[in-house]
Amino acid sequence: MKAAVCGTSGYTGLILLRLLTGHPHIHNIIPVSSSREGKHVRSIDPGIGEDIVEKTSLTGGLCVSIEKAAAMSPDVVFGALPHLKSAELLSPFFAKSVVIDLSADFRIKNPSVFEKSYGSPPPKPHLLHDAVYGLSEWYREDVVKADIIANPGCYPTATLLPLLPLLKEGIAGGLCLVTAISGISGAGKKVKENLLFCERSENTGAYSPGKSHRHTSEIQQEADTAMPGTEVLFTPHLAPLKRGMVITTAIPCIGEVSDEDIGGVYSRYYANAPFINIRPDIPQSRDVWGSNRCDISWQREGNVLLIFSAIDNLIKGASGQAVQNMNIRFGFEEISGLSVHNEI
Amino acid sequence: MKAAVCGTSGYTGLILLRLLTGHPHIHNIIPVSSSREGKHVRSIDPGIGEDIVEKTSLTGGLCVSIEKAAAMSPDVVFGALPHLKSAELLSPFFAKSVVIDLSADFRIKNPSVFEKSYGSPPPKPHLLHDAVYGLSEWYREDVVKADIIANPGCYPTATLLPLLPLLKEGIAGGLCLVTAISGISGAGKKVKENLLFCERSENTGAYSPGKSHRHTSEIQQEADTAMPGTEVLFTPHLAPLKRGMVITTAIPCIGEVSDEDIGGVYSRYYANAPFINIRPDIPQSRDVWGSNRCDISWQREGNVLLIFSAIDNLIKGASGQAVQNMNIRFGFEEISGLSVHNEI
Amino acid sequence: MKAAVCGTSGYTGLILLRLLTGHPHIHNIIPVSSSREGKHVRSIDPGIGEDIVEKTSLTGGLCVSIEKAAAMSPDVVFGALPHLKSAELLSPFFAKSVVIDLSADFRIKNPSVFEKSYGSPPPKPHLLHDAVYGLSEWYREDVVKADIIANPGCYPTATLLPLLPLLKEGIAGGLCLVTAISGISGAGKKVKENLLFCERSENTGAYSPGKSHRHTSEIQQEADTAMPGTEVLFTPHLAPLKRGMVITTAIPCIGEVSDEDIGGVYSRYYANAPFINIRPDIPQSRDVWGSNRCDISWQREGNVLLIFSAIDNLIKGASGQAVQNMNIRFGFEEISGLSVHNEI
Amino acid sequence: MKAAVCGTSGYTGLILLRLLTGHPHIHNIIPVSSSREGKHVRSIDPGIGEDIVEKTSLTGGLCVSIEKAAAMSPDVVFGALPHLKSAELLSPFFAKSVVIDLSADFRIKNPSVFEKSYGSPPPKPHLLHDAVYGLSEWYREDVVKADIIANPGCYPTATLLPLLPLLKEGIAGGLCLVTAISGISGAGKKVKENLLFCERSENTGAYSPGKSHRHTSEIQQEADTAMPGTEVLFTPHLAPLKRGMVITTAIPCIGEVSDEDIGGVYSRYYANAPFINIRPDIPQSRDVWGSNRCDISWQREGNVLLIFSAIDNLIKGASGQAVQNMNIRFGFEEISGLSVHNEI
Repeated sequence: MKAAVCGTSGYTGLILLRLLTGHPHIHNIIPVSSSREGKHVRSIDPGIGEDIVEKTSLTGGLCVSIEKAAAMSPDVVFGALPHLKSAELLSPFFAKSVVIDLSADFRIKNPSVFEKSYGSPPPKPHLLHDAVYGLSEWYREDVVKADIIANPGCYPTATLLPLLPLLKEGIAGGLCLVTAISGISGAGKKVKENLLFCERSENTGAYSPGKSHRHTSEIQQEADTAMPGTEVLFTPHLAPLKRGMVITTAIPCIGEVSDEDIGGVYSRYYANAPFINIRPDIPQSRDVWGSNRCDISWQREGNVLLIFSAIDNLIKGASGQAVQNMNIRFGFEEISGLSVHNEI
Repeated sequence: MKAAVCGTSGYTGLILLRLLTGHPHIHNIIPVSSSREGKHVRSIDPGIGEDIVEKTSLTGGLCVSIEKAAAMSPDVVFGALPHLKSAELLSPFFAKSVVIDLSADFRIKNPSVFEKSYGSPPPKPHLLHDAVYGLSEWYREDVVKADIIANPGCYPTATLLPLLPLLKEGIAGGLCLVTAISGISGAGKKVKENLLFCERSENTGAYSPGKSHRHTSEIQQEADTAMPGTEVLFTPHLAPLKRGMVITTAIPCIGEVSDEDIGGVYSRYYANAPFINIRPDIPQSRDVWGSNRCDISWQREGNVLLIFSAIDNLIKGASGQAVQNMNIRFGFEEISGLSVHNEI
Repeated sequence: MKAAVCGTSGYTGLILLRLLTGHPHIHNIIPVSSSREGKHVRSIDPGIGEDIVEKTSLTGGLCVSIEKAAAMSPDVVFGALPHLKSAELLSPFFAKSVVIDLSADFRIKNPSVFEKSYGSPPPKPHLLHDAVYGLSEWYREDVVKADIIANPGCYPTATLLPLLPLLKEGIAGGLCLVTAISGISGAGKKVKENLLFCERSENTGAYSPGKSHRHTSEIQQEADTAMPGTEVLFTPHLAPLKRGMVITTAIPCIGEVSDEDIGGVYSRYYANAPFINIRPDIPQSRDVWGSNRCDISWQREGNVLLIFSAIDNLIKGASGQAVQNMNIRFGFEEISGLSVHNEI
Repeated sequence: MKAAVCGTSGYTGLILLRLLTGHPHIHNIIPVSSSREGKHVRSIDPGIGEDIVEKTSLTGGLCVSIEKAAAMSPDVVFGALPHLKSAELLSPFFAKSVVIDLSADFRIKNPSVFEKSYGSPPPKPHLLHDAVYGLSEWYREDVVKADIIANPGCYPTATLLPLLPLLKEGIAGGLCLVTAISGISGAGKKVKENLLFCERSENTGAYSPGKSHRHTSEIQQEADTAMPGTEVLFTPHLAPLKRGMVITTAIPCIGEVSDEDIGGVYSRYYANAPFINIRPDIPQSRDVWGSNRCDISWQREGNVLLIFSAIDNLIKGASGQAVQNMNIRFGFEEISGLSVHNEI
């Protein structure tokens, strides 16, 4: 199978190159980059090895334009491109390849909500209906049939996976206070002063809290679908790590809820989910570093349920879930090319 | 004036040595350490300079035992000693010197609450009544007269300073969800596997959440005093920084509350507080690194108030506030020997 | 094939578990740990996934004693055990399994040199002759036939790979000044004060410089073999990273040496070495993070040759090279189970 | 006394604001910034406290242009401006204020050497003769009389302080191999991809090695002056810390040299140097973090002398030494406003 990776110079693009190179069903990768067109993939990152170079042999290891990539008819296309530009740039692939878009362009179903969050209307509104929100464990049945998959954001992935089953079952709900800590790569490889080493090392703090954060609308959309009326208050923080994300969610229980009830819900919903790891102890970000897992635990404090989840923001929060969606869409084993253990 | 620092080999002890060396009213420092008795202070930390060595000339720069220190009749004694041992170890100084205890031994007024949090009864219950909880901005009038000052924990300091005025004024209250991120030095210099560089780098996550955390009872005690019935749910997280602490608190407003109301409360309460910095933007931990400041901002989200605060856990969260309490107690200028700007 | 990993609780043991789990020719792994005997591998590291648990199904995922492991007749045994204890502990496997020892116990051929470096005589002197020094690219022919393989140290690996061809060809020699920077995991998972996060973050410096460092004798032994009379002066530094190692070596050229001469030597020696990457630009430690590669470049400054090399100290510097040696020994493809690209 | 700080938005400018605010003889600071003209100093860094704001009251806490600053006739001017632009921008102050230039523009006495290193001729060649190279401990007598002080680079400072006495006394010399590790702030606050957190964390390596590095010519100039014929081969490395610098220098001894000889030289040269700390053990960068000290130790290995030195690149390597030079120039106590102990 042939895969194109659009935006190979960013962190998610670079990780896609690695995951797809190790994937048993991908035989060729087409590296796509406008800023690096004509340049060798290794010029982006000297850590790229001969195995990646070989998998990109169709283009001689060179980055090509989207047009050239489209002419090579890839079976699947990964868009690791900026929000608001992605849907437009990926146009040549629609209706020809399966498109897995890691940007936000197809995630929000309500155009006015999108506009409020992103400052302009969704770029391809007529395709919104076709696009499936690719939270793999939750929309497997839809992903199987989708030709446009809107890969979720990292914050929503880590928040929703433990939250949705509880909302759906009606055992928790109401005002949902979500506090997140993210590694710096969540902001991508943007060359901005506030992402410099000396600005981030020995530094942590909240940013864009509450309803104003872009990811809130994505979380809100899915929470509302699972249990109408759920209200999400989301506060992200940055901490000095490259990769890693943990979420602490506080949510009121509804009625009498026992630990067994909660455990039972998770068991039922995630019995066949190879990347969901329900644990008795609180997951730390290192436990899932490099893996596609989402580790989850919870603790009741009176009527309030505290839920803890951890992902690698670049894997389950981006490139790994994109590959997982490809696996589901093409009928491969769900864990193909992905890791269920961390790196240390 | 003569000051003794008990426990000079830990991080808070070492910072006390530095702060007191730069203090205009401290002429002699007696370094006290059981593990280092008879050894030169510089053997603990080669970063100690000649200025610190000179200020410890009474003991020839050598660490001495508590007994020897007591015989030298210090005016003020700082206890940077372990919980449950501190009050006992500091006994030779009571009723002779002003004692500022950085441990938890005198912080909790209710012995049964203390026992629940620390696993055994308070070591000197008969002195609990004499000890003043040294949250400087809040108990200035009591500190002035106290001979035993229970220096607050870092989490409670950063949580309570922005919270108490709102509770006291009755404009917010109820279930108070406190999420904290702390640098690793909050755990002290304990030689434990989970504090190793390779275990903490590229790692973040929650620990001891909810009502089981020791600091919850301390926060709860003060919150309850300001507004009976307040319920605190506290969740701390570790992140890979040496120093720094940020707190995000979500609390329901009571009745109709405007931004002006909140701003007004802070203005009134902290008009003369040189270390409280009310800001329009969200404070980051680096903004207060090395300073004794507590930076605070807030944001209303519907009926919920989000409060953000940042301190240096080793300064305002420990040694700095201890010096501030000494300044208040002895009638020095409150900022003597302390910094109102950060280091970068 | 069946592999035992002795010392699964340390960093190199944990990485071996991961590498072997992904290895196509290893069907069973026996996790061995004295401190964790009877405990589940996941209790050591919750990041261990179901794949690793499955590969350890022979013991039910439990750590076993060396005796039990020996009774299971593994084809290959990896010793990730402390120096001076390793050779003794691995005794039950000699002459039965192929033993790959990651400790120093079999590395130094001259017992008196070993004793000088490690403070006591080599623990199994009669086996020294049988043990092969497992610098894979350099001793491939010997490794093929060896039943005891002394896996090299990380510093020697990164130093010798670029150095030996030049010495062997006689184009550089004499006083060899080796400066190394290592990540903290090079010290293992020892619970020591100077390995605490707060002691290592924002800290760098040299330690054990010159001829007194243990690794000097290992480098010296091999350098001397390649060109008698070579003198090695080795200075390691620690820097605040978990993993990664770079070496800068300065060595006088012998006679007239051109860039082509040097490039030619490397081309010839490493033409068939999948993990050696000769580059025009200076390798950084991130370029090889997670890979088994050794990246190398050089620059002439007058008569002095500067050589730059980078490895991941836990992979090519330890566990990865151990797997590479297994691959060579058992006739598997040399890159089986190993990565030639980095993680980002 | 009135001081102007030109370039207040960079790291060295921000540290100058802090040091000068704490300086007993500086009553007013004029913050100068072209990019921030008219903006409040606190907008650059919210960590700036009321004390700094007060000291900048002459401009109402606002950054002003160089012209405005010149009109205010400061006694001393600190230039924390880019190389090649600094000398030109500081023109309005020459012959009116004492100018301490932290750029390289006046450091290299030989214009053709400067041009080779910096790509264009020195910007104010006619003033080169007036400018004194401000390595405080070495040129005290010249600094006292100078109206233009070329503040040394961080690498040369840390290299030359331990090296020059040995060269001057003729007990070591010849090929001098200097290996340096620097924190990231050495590169300033430039917004470049290779200075991003995610590019520098878990990463270390050499850059611009050998004679091509800009700082080599500065080191070479001074080494040559101390002992003609000395050859410097300089290799810098970056490591993931904000601040800190260590240097390891290897240099042949000349003739029979004993430990006493070396110790004796340092004792004589640095007897009255409050910031030079000769130690028996190897200094680590944390030992001098935040202090203006240069810690030094050495070790003989046969005929080769290994010298170890550590500074804080932003203090003794930049802003601290600039203040030290001001102290010397104006007859203040040398340590005024500076620290001889580290921060932890």
